[in-house]
Amino acid sequence: MIIRDLIVTPIAFRDPPLLNADGVHERLALRNIVQLVVDGNVIGLGEGSGGIAVTESVLAVREAIIGLSVFDLHGIEAAVSAVFGGDEGSLSRRERRVIYAMLDVAAHDAQGKIVGVPVSDLLGGAVRESVPYSAYLFYKWAEHPAFDGIPATGDEWGAALDPEGIVRQASALIDRYGFRSIKLKGGVFPPDEEIAAVRALAEAFPGYPLRIDPNGAWTQETAVRVARELEPVLEYLEDPVLGIDGMAAVSRETPLPLATNMCVVTFEQLKEGFAKDAVQIVLSDHHYWGGLAHTRELAAICSAWGVGLSMHSNSHLGISLAAMTHVAAASPELSYACDTHYPWNRGDDIVKAGVLEIVDGSIAVPRAPGLGVELDLDALERQHQVYLESGRTVRDDTGYMRRIQPHYSPTLPRF
Amino acid sequence: MIIRDLIVTPIAFRDPPLLNADGVHERLALRNIVQLVVDGNVIGLGEGSGGIAVTESVLAVREAIIGLSVFDLHGIEAAVSAVFGGDEGSLSRRERRVIYAMLDVAAHDAQGKIVGVPVSDLLGGAVRESVPYSAYLFYKWAEHPAFDGIPATGDEWGAALDPEGIVRQASALIDRYGFRSIKLKGGVFPPDEEIAAVRALAEAFPGYPLRIDPNGAWTQETAVRVARELEPVLEYLEDPVLGIDGMAAVSRETPLPLATNMCVVTFEQLKEGFAKDAVQIVLSDHHYWGGLAHTRELAAICSAWGVGLSMHSNSHLGISLAAMTHVAAASPELSYACDTHYPWNRGDDIVKAGVLEIVDGSIAVPRAPGLGVELDLDALERQHQVYLESGRTVRDDTGYMRRIQPHYSPTLPRF
Repeated sequence: MIIRDLIVTPIAFRDPPLLNADGVHERLALRNIVQLVVDGNVIGLGEGSGGIAVTESVLAVREAIIGLSVFDLHGIEAAVSAVFGGDEGSLSRRERRVIYAMLDVAAHDAQGKIVGVPVSDLLGGAVRESVPYSAYLFYKWAEHPAFDGIPATGDEWGAALDPEGIVRQASALIDRYGFRSIKLKGGVFPPDEEIAAVRALAEAFPGYPLRIDPNGAWTQETAVRVARELEPVLEYLEDPVLGIDGMAAVSRETPLPLATNMCVVTFEQLKEGFAKDAVQIVLSDHHYWGGLAHTRELAAICSAWGVGLSMHSNSHLGISLAAMTHVAAASPELSYACDTHYPWNRGDDIVKAGVLEIVDGSIAVPRAPGLGVELDLDALERQHQVYLESGRTVRDDTGYMRRIQPHYSPTLPRF
Repeated sequence: MIIRDLIVTPIAFRDPPLLNADGVHERLALRNIVQLVVDGNVIGLGEGSGGIAVTESVLAVREAIIGLSVFDLHGIEAAVSAVFGGDEGSLSRRERRVIYAMLDVAAHDAQGKIVGVPVSDLLGGAVRESVPYSAYLFYKWAEHPAFDGIPATGDEWGAALDPEGIVRQASALIDRYGFRSIKLKGGVFPPDEEIAAVRALAEAFPGYPLRIDPNGAWTQETAVRVARELEPVLEYLEDPVLGIDGMAAVSRETPLPLATNMCVVTFEQLKEGFAKDAVQIVLSDHHYWGGLAHTRELAAICSAWGVGLSMHSNSHLGISLAAMTHVAAASPELSYACDTHYPWNRGDDIVKAGVLEIVDGSIAVPRAPGLGVELDLDALERQHQVYLESGRTVRDDTGYMRRIQPHYSPTLPRF
């Protein structure tokens, strides 16, 4: 059960031109894939944020975790902390948790394979056989524009730049995957246009829980106005403004539950965030809350404070989706459909197909040992080559947008 | 990995006449021992509160958990809740957690045996090789008085009814076990006598962390006065008064950290207790916080809120001590020596000797699979017969005291 090696593979995969408050998704999204090699030919899989800084940080901890037991999560976490100098060191606690989380997922996968149980069983057992996800809608262009000799590249989803386009996108996603909740990434167009889009969704999909997430793009005044207008149709409103104090101020003006993956993203922020009643729902995300066991702790905290629990997503592939599904399945506290970008990126997945199918808006919790997904080594190599050939090292939605709109400013609040 | 049977055995074991705010420990302390029988001849051990109500409650859940996976802790917990009718039912959440906790420990023991790892590995891994415990001092009589044809019964520890007796008891415990922290159970004598005892301990054992726990026997005025007098010598002050508001009022008047195992004993009380700054240290106890995984959640909560974590004890035997040691070992948040009654009761233990030795005040974390302790079936049967012959069904420190002092009142605050 001893860790013998740690392999990290940076990859890139195709991403549509999805719009958000920062700009627009680039042609390629980045991720890092880790393989934790354990005694007995067991390999635990993990997936986390992309970019060269993360790749190098994972490499930096490699020697420190070789020789530890794959069950010694505290030891692995302490080793990660020590490599970066702890609280006085080069990475913040949140940054260290991002690195540790990839190892935590891989360790859980390896543990499950060793024990012969799914990861959800290592987290207390699945309380649901399948995990509901939401249709994650984005304003988007029809294609990535032509640049540097690369021709314009469209996709099967087409454009969505107004209420009609958003409803069309929702219909396509729901037709294919059966989603029963809808989330719209906002903060892109003037609020009245986004209000109109939400209302169009409410009309087209009566009874579907709806959410909008402008990523803090609104002023408090705008946020309160939007909240009042959309209060009858929204399930919750996600990060309408930036910061705990701002969210608390908005919260005092609306009965609509406010959710966040921006102002309360560390254990250190919970006390203040909850004391000020800044959020009524926390969007968990094992990638930055420090892995699966710490995500269970977050869930317990939310339950004890009477705060709701949902789940955040960033662009990801199948290892992360499996991990999200296991921890969601093992969280009785979760009462909302989880977010996932998977429909946008699954074409380039590096796990073998067939396990993570979205049916009736839900993914069945894998029952095979560990995460229950199998790495496709050919696909991993293919996407690694894409990464190498891209020359990309960081995500830069703003920089990409500025190639099309040179004066684009990501400064928030915008509206 | 399926649960095939659940066996509960009520037992009784000798207990010295230890004094507390309720009265005095009876001749026999009661416990319930559970054996969770799992596929493959695996038996998971659990230990919990004594008394016939607990025995019957465990029996009541037997059929509901047979057939579940021993890894499905959420399923076992939900089954316990359902048997008693959930939140509208016959047991409070805390009472249900007491029942579930015994099964949780037994399930962890079975899981560890199946996987081949110690329970601490199932809780994230041991962050310390041994767990420090405190010398738990009690005012006590030299002997249980003669009653009903049973002659007076002394013990090796003798009387401790004044500062001199308390220091003598501390010396005996420290000589034998090497304890490096000291806790005095107070609330028995007028506060000035107990202040004198603490001062005598401070003088006799310079540098030893000291605590006193009057179990809410003091008025706020008394508590503040004692806190001020003992502030230079105490590590923390435990439950000087009853209730969150009372504790908060005392806390405002002293820089001494206040600890509790009385006013914040459920997840539902954490929010109010922390918001009011009623306690600066929570004494965890897996027996009523709902088992080992939930105790880890409590630890994470305390860490996020900047509240200290220590560990409470009730009269117990070796299965509980092993469980306490594993969860303490797997809790980086724990920064105090844990409490244990074990030196007072270990003579009648129902696990085989040799594993749980207190050396230099600490217990080495068992490395064998599961809890690492082995049930002594002869001893279990012996103590079960003691239980049956005793005719005892509940703990009643007050009733016992009234046989000696007929007008004894347990009403608090007393001083």
